[in-house]
Amino acid sequence: MLKTPYLLFLGDAHDQLAAKVAKGICDWRPEYAVGQLRLPGCNADLGLPDMTLDEAREAGAQTMVIGVANRGGVISESWKDVMVEALENGFDLASGLHNRLRDNPHLAATAAKYGQELFDVRIPNQTYPIATGEKRSGKRCLTVGTDCSVGKMYTTLALEKEMKERSMNVDFRATGQSGILITGDGVPLDAVIADFMAGAVEWLTPDNDPDHWDLIEGQGSLFHVSFSGVTMALIHGGQPDALILCHEPTRTHMRGIPTFGLPSLEEVRDLSLKIAQVVNADCKVVGISVNTASLNQEEAKKYLAEVENRMGLPTVDPYRQGAARLVDELEKIT
Amino acid sequence: MLKTPYLLFLGDAHDQLAAKVAKGICDWRPEYAVGQLRLPGCNADLGLPDMTLDEAREAGAQTMVIGVANRGGVISESWKDVMVEALENGFDLASGLHNRLRDNPHLAATAAKYGQELFDVRIPNQTYPIATGEKRSGKRCLTVGTDCSVGKMYTTLALEKEMKERSMNVDFRATGQSGILITGDGVPLDAVIADFMAGAVEWLTPDNDPDHWDLIEGQGSLFHVSFSGVTMALIHGGQPDALILCHEPTRTHMRGIPTFGLPSLEEVRDLSLKIAQVVNADCKVVGISVNTASLNQEEAKKYLAEVENRMGLPTVDPYRQGAARLVDELEKIT
Repeated sequence: MLKTPYLLFLGDAHDQLAAKVAKGICDWRPEYAVGQLRLPGCNADLGLPDMTLDEAREAGAQTMVIGVANRGGVISESWKDVMVEALENGFDLASGLHNRLRDNPHLAATAAKYGQELFDVRIPNQTYPIATGEKRSGKRCLTVGTDCSVGKMYTTLALEKEMKERSMNVDFRATGQSGILITGDGVPLDAVIADFMAGAVEWLTPDNDPDHWDLIEGQGSLFHVSFSGVTMALIHGGQPDALILCHEPTRTHMRGIPTFGLPSLEEVRDLSLKIAQVVNADCKVVGISVNTASLNQEEAKKYLAEVENRMGLPTVDPYRQGAARLVDELEKIT
Repeated sequence: MLKTPYLLFLGDAHDQLAAKVAKGICDWRPEYAVGQLRLPGCNADLGLPDMTLDEAREAGAQTMVIGVANRGGVISESWKDVMVEALENGFDLASGLHNRLRDNPHLAATAAKYGQELFDVRIPNQTYPIATGEKRSGKRCLTVGTDCSVGKMYTTLALEKEMKERSMNVDFRATGQSGILITGDGVPLDAVIADFMAGAVEWLTPDNDPDHWDLIEGQGSLFHVSFSGVTMALIHGGQPDALILCHEPTRTHMRGIPTFGLPSLEEVRDLSLKIAQVVNADCKVVGISVNTASLNQEEAKKYLAEVENRMGLPTVDPYRQGAARLVDELEKIT
């Protein structure tokens, strides 16, 4: 578990998109984001106070989060001095980069010397059990998608926000690196050993109060041949009571595999439900979340209405409309 | 890839069942099994010549395979002397035990000193790519089960035997530790990192001659909540043209998870086919393999006839009847 709050390191991010993870932290955990640290040439700005390491320490920051991605996911040479200095000044470091912090000898030695921790959130930091499938108390909702990167994390975080506003008993359960950096905890499921995937999801969503909801961040798609095994383990390990379908309407093929078209929402509904009912006979599909960022307001409205009418399920874009109508459906599950 | 042929080390196996892997090698790769090495107290006998290390070396053996399992999968103290001696005498060692050979400092040092290799077949010995789903040339058959341990490896090896007898162009593709030890090569799929499971199966079954068959050893079950993600990756990575359903008729619950009943063969057929058709629209279920070891001959005959009639697919127990009728179906796929 990462120590909060964070100083967000934006490095020399060449645009706002390169600081996507830091933006996610500002959007969903603003209380964790005390300031930003930018290097010369940085073109991203989160609207947070620019801080030196000293100022951030003064403001209470405990972890410097590498909130920027660059080509290849490597640790840029120009970042190293400030990373070392952060460790020397009592910060932990957390990163979702492909290259691990702990594999950099200078960072590893400095962290050891100053008693600070290096969190590579792509790497599981523990072993997980084999799944038992035993029924757990509490309720669970899982987002499943027609494809990768269609808004499953966003939808799940939007559900959490709405449910917290309603004072519901709820936890977001991160299963990917961005989700883990944003919320400070979770399981990097795509990096778990095959035999333990479903067990890791069970571990992440243990027995809980009868009125408690685990909101499980979905990954991949049952129809994405590269990652479908991970999605399968999420459904069987997650034991969901409710599924929410996620979709991006302008995508012409599955992400990264151009010869594969997208499945229909009906296909995703039917296959996900069939698989979920192996482990929870009462599982229901309760709503649909559509990422309409590529549509104008009129097109979006029309598209959402068409899907809602066709599927007979509340259909929203949580970015435009919030997740209230989806949460209304979750509230009906007792 | 393991060096063949093998000397089969049976240690102090307390019964024949403890020497199951060695038995598998004798059954399916008799040409790899030059002899057995037994310690005092061994109650297993494969009917092979008992050999000293010197005799086995003389007979051409290159690898000493630990063909015995004991409680906990550890390397027994009483085995260590002969294992060290084997390395000193120019043998590689291969093991599917839970405890790794390479983690034993004495074995690791001896192997390094004498230039011999330690093969822990539970551990992937390379990195695998992410699956692309690109259509590959050649044909592929995958066994899928109602449960774990219902005869998927046995069925796949029986298919291979029959197809070789018919001089068909065929390779068995091992995906588990026993299969790897028996055939000397493969991918220990349950130990692969989640993101690379389907890619590992693609790697294992690459482009091939148009008339070539990859016979892919199945793992787990789509209906076994602990391991279903692995099965999913096998189907999507394997891109099968043909599926063969495997079943054990007397099992009362899913292996290791007593609260889960078995799915019907119809359910396994429908779900497997739906998932396989995502990656290969022409995939067919061509037959059924039933492990009738717990039934007498009359019961077995009756059960097989009942299933064949109900499912409309050739249904055999390859142990009793061979796999010829299943291979007849594969021969129809062009």
